[in-house]
Amino acid sequence: MIEELRETVCGLHAELVRNNLVAWTAGNVSGRLPGADLFVIKPSGVSYDDLTPGSMVVCDLDGAPVEGTLAPSSDTAAHAYVYRHMPQVNGVVHTHSTYASAWAARGEPIPCVLTAMADEFGGAIPVGPFALIGGDDIGRGVVETLSGHRSRAVLMRNHGVFTVGESPKAAVKAAVMCEDVARTVHLSRQLGEPLPIAPADVDRLYDRYQNVYGQRSDR
Amino acid sequence: MIEELRETVCGLHAELVRNNLVAWTAGNVSGRLPGADLFVIKPSGVSYDDLTPGSMVVCDLDGAPVEGTLAPSSDTAAHAYVYRHMPQVNGVVHTHSTYASAWAARGEPIPCVLTAMADEFGGAIPVGPFALIGGDDIGRGVVETLSGHRSRAVLMRNHGVFTVGESPKAAVKAAVMCEDVARTVHLSRQLGEPLPIAPADVDRLYDRYQNVYGQRSDR
Amino acid sequence: MIEELRETVCGLHAELVRNNLVAWTAGNVSGRLPGADLFVIKPSGVSYDDLTPGSMVVCDLDGAPVEGTLAPSSDTAAHAYVYRHMPQVNGVVHTHSTYASAWAARGEPIPCVLTAMADEFGGAIPVGPFALIGGDDIGRGVVETLSGHRSRAVLMRNHGVFTVGESPKAAVKAAVMCEDVARTVHLSRQLGEPLPIAPADVDRLYDRYQNVYGQRSDR
Amino acid sequence: MIEELRETVCGLHAELVRNNLVAWTAGNVSGRLPGADLFVIKPSGVSYDDLTPGSMVVCDLDGAPVEGTLAPSSDTAAHAYVYRHMPQVNGVVHTHSTYASAWAARGEPIPCVLTAMADEFGGAIPVGPFALIGGDDIGRGVVETLSGHRSRAVLMRNHGVFTVGESPKAAVKAAVMCEDVARTVHLSRQLGEPLPIAPADVDRLYDRYQNVYGQRSDR
Repeated sequence: MIEELRETVCGLHAELVRNNLVAWTAGNVSGRLPGADLFVIKPSGVSYDDLTPGSMVVCDLDGAPVEGTLAPSSDTAAHAYVYRHMPQVNGVVHTHSTYASAWAARGEPIPCVLTAMADEFGGAIPVGPFALIGGDDIGRGVVETLSGHRSRAVLMRNHGVFTVGESPKAAVKAAVMCEDVARTVHLSRQLGEPLPIAPADVDRLYDRYQNVYGQRSDR
Repeated sequence: MIEELRETVCGLHAELVRNNLVAWTAGNVSGRLPGADLFVIKPSGVSYDDLTPGSMVVCDLDGAPVEGTLAPSSDTAAHAYVYRHMPQVNGVVHTHSTYASAWAARGEPIPCVLTAMADEFGGAIPVGPFALIGGDDIGRGVVETLSGHRSRAVLMRNHGVFTVGESPKAAVKAAVMCEDVARTVHLSRQLGEPLPIAPADVDRLYDRYQNVYGQRSDR
Repeated sequence: MIEELRETVCGLHAELVRNNLVAWTAGNVSGRLPGADLFVIKPSGVSYDDLTPGSMVVCDLDGAPVEGTLAPSSDTAAHAYVYRHMPQVNGVVHTHSTYASAWAARGEPIPCVLTAMADEFGGAIPVGPFALIGGDDIGRGVVETLSGHRSRAVLMRNHGVFTVGESPKAAVKAAVMCEDVARTVHLSRQLGEPLPIAPADVDRLYDRYQNVYGQRSDR
Repeated sequence: MIEELRETVCGLHAELVRNNLVAWTAGNVSGRLPGADLFVIKPSGVSYDDLTPGSMVVCDLDGAPVEGTLAPSSDTAAHAYVYRHMPQVNGVVHTHSTYASAWAARGEPIPCVLTAMADEFGGAIPVGPFALIGGDDIGRGVVETLSGHRSRAVLMRNHGVFTVGESPKAAVKAAVMCEDVARTVHLSRQLGEPLPIAPADVDRLYDRYQNVYGQRSDR
């Protein structure tokens, strides 16, 4: 079980690189071990090329490593906070992806003006507070902002993006889609005002996408 | 015949990825089976890396799968509508490509200010209505907007792009060129107003490109 | 001799792709055969992946193919005009590269505000006239605009870029650098006015780069 | 020792390409030979594909090559000046990376509005003077601007970026991060004003990142 999760989490980091969400060693993916109070996360400051399943770090839900010699990601406390407070979440992703971070630096939510946003996020992508790294502040900001929202992504002010999902892969998908819509809406706004989508249509799109899209075996 | 079309349509999805037109599993290509009321389309929610000729879904012109176990793209109804109402069309492509979708989010047509646009689209790229997925609304919007236009591409409001062609490859080419000119015209407008091309020159460019460009065997 | 030139010109097309200067089959490179009234150019409408040295088309200086069965690039007349009127030029490149074409659509020269521009182009990159394809108009516009300029690149209005060089490789380098500085200056102007470089400093930079840069054997 | 440094410096040039910091042959990395008054640098005007450890040029601290036949980078004098005046620096990188150069063309420092900037640069990225290539002017501008700053990067006016580090790899990391934050802050400012980070928080982030991030063995 843990070996499979190490492989999954390690492999998903390659998606961050492939989708141009990360520079150098920034960014990280974690996954909760089903049925245990453990999660697997990237080691700190290690190059994406050098990641292996064995270098992933297993942590308890306080963010303390339970085996191995590598230090876990410096964002581990934030991931741990999310797992402690959002039991339905089994995957967390953090990036400084370019367009999403540009919105975050202004502290401005991304308005829902694309059907793809309605599908994936069910509305605007919200902004969380400015928070310093090192304690529970970032994790608390993520959890408080996402509670009561359909969005799986939050823009942390002056910082970057956190996304959550029912699996590590779903959280990575949310990170990819967040940057994609952040870019498209940014560009649209450069030359004028994007047209709104009626809230009732946002609801219809979200409901359908969550229930009809993809293969039945994925749902 | 159907095997060849499965291979063609599968292979063309790689062009969407290579030309950066798609994120995650968004986007799809279909091709009509010559002489039959059937078309081949991408399965829903499957990763581009995992597509094989065998995973392509064969549908009738109502969009119902006629064999296999995978569900077809959630945009299948729109493709089917186009095939039913545009007999000259043998290929359809749908993407949320970034710059084209940025124009679509404002509901603004792309003005014809590049000779490459005159060549490929014969004028401006028009905007279709806002339409919800799941019925004939999107397909009808595509067909009504493209009828009477030389453009092979339509920007569906708040959504993305549909392109059509006399072959699946021609529709993919139109999708690539649509994003290319959407980006160039967007950038040009950021620093001022692009100069117009006289309508008579647009006509001359379009006529020549449709009749002289490429190898004789391609025409 | 001609075989070597076919290989060189074929191989340089891969640089257009690698440097993101071209979409689909747009763009072309040609090279003059030293000591003969011939040049080698891309065939029309052929995919970059499918180019081989053997598919390059040999033309006389009127742009007529002198062997083989493939039609040459639809821009052949413009290349031929340049070779007839600029004897020092042995390579010509044409692209619709994004940022350069954005400036061309406004008919606006790129101001020389980067030392890299002074190095390579010796000043601003000028704009040529709007010209229809199919006769000598484009070639004449290129030659007239570049005559009396140090620039190896010209932005043809509403169209794209032509670059020239003492070799096909030098023309490709100019096309790469033209897009690079077009992008940087575009971005710089988005947030204010770039600072000018004093004309005497532009001269000093150009002189040094043309005479000191690179290995002695390249000069 | 020198062979290992040749390999390191050669390999780091591939990072410039992979991170899209360089066009054609522009850009260079150097590394100081520990315990000797020598450094290793890219040869002038050689394609990134053709670089080998053996083609790297060994220079003394006046920038004169001490062995081999290739001419060193035309920026060698600037690297040498830095090594002579900043004994703690063991690696220097120079690029014309796009967004950083766009700020440099306006002569405008990049404000510290991202936690990643506070982490890596400890504040704003400063601007150095306009300086002609060929003497000590560029090197002096780099050293004078970086003296008394926490930033490892300086934007040289109308030119590009120089970064320094305690190792060649650290200087390359600074070049990658400089372009990354230059791009994000540029985009953020396009649609409004990024929110400031309180100076005390910048200090806290910088201190933590320099002391806690990464694996203990890296520090």
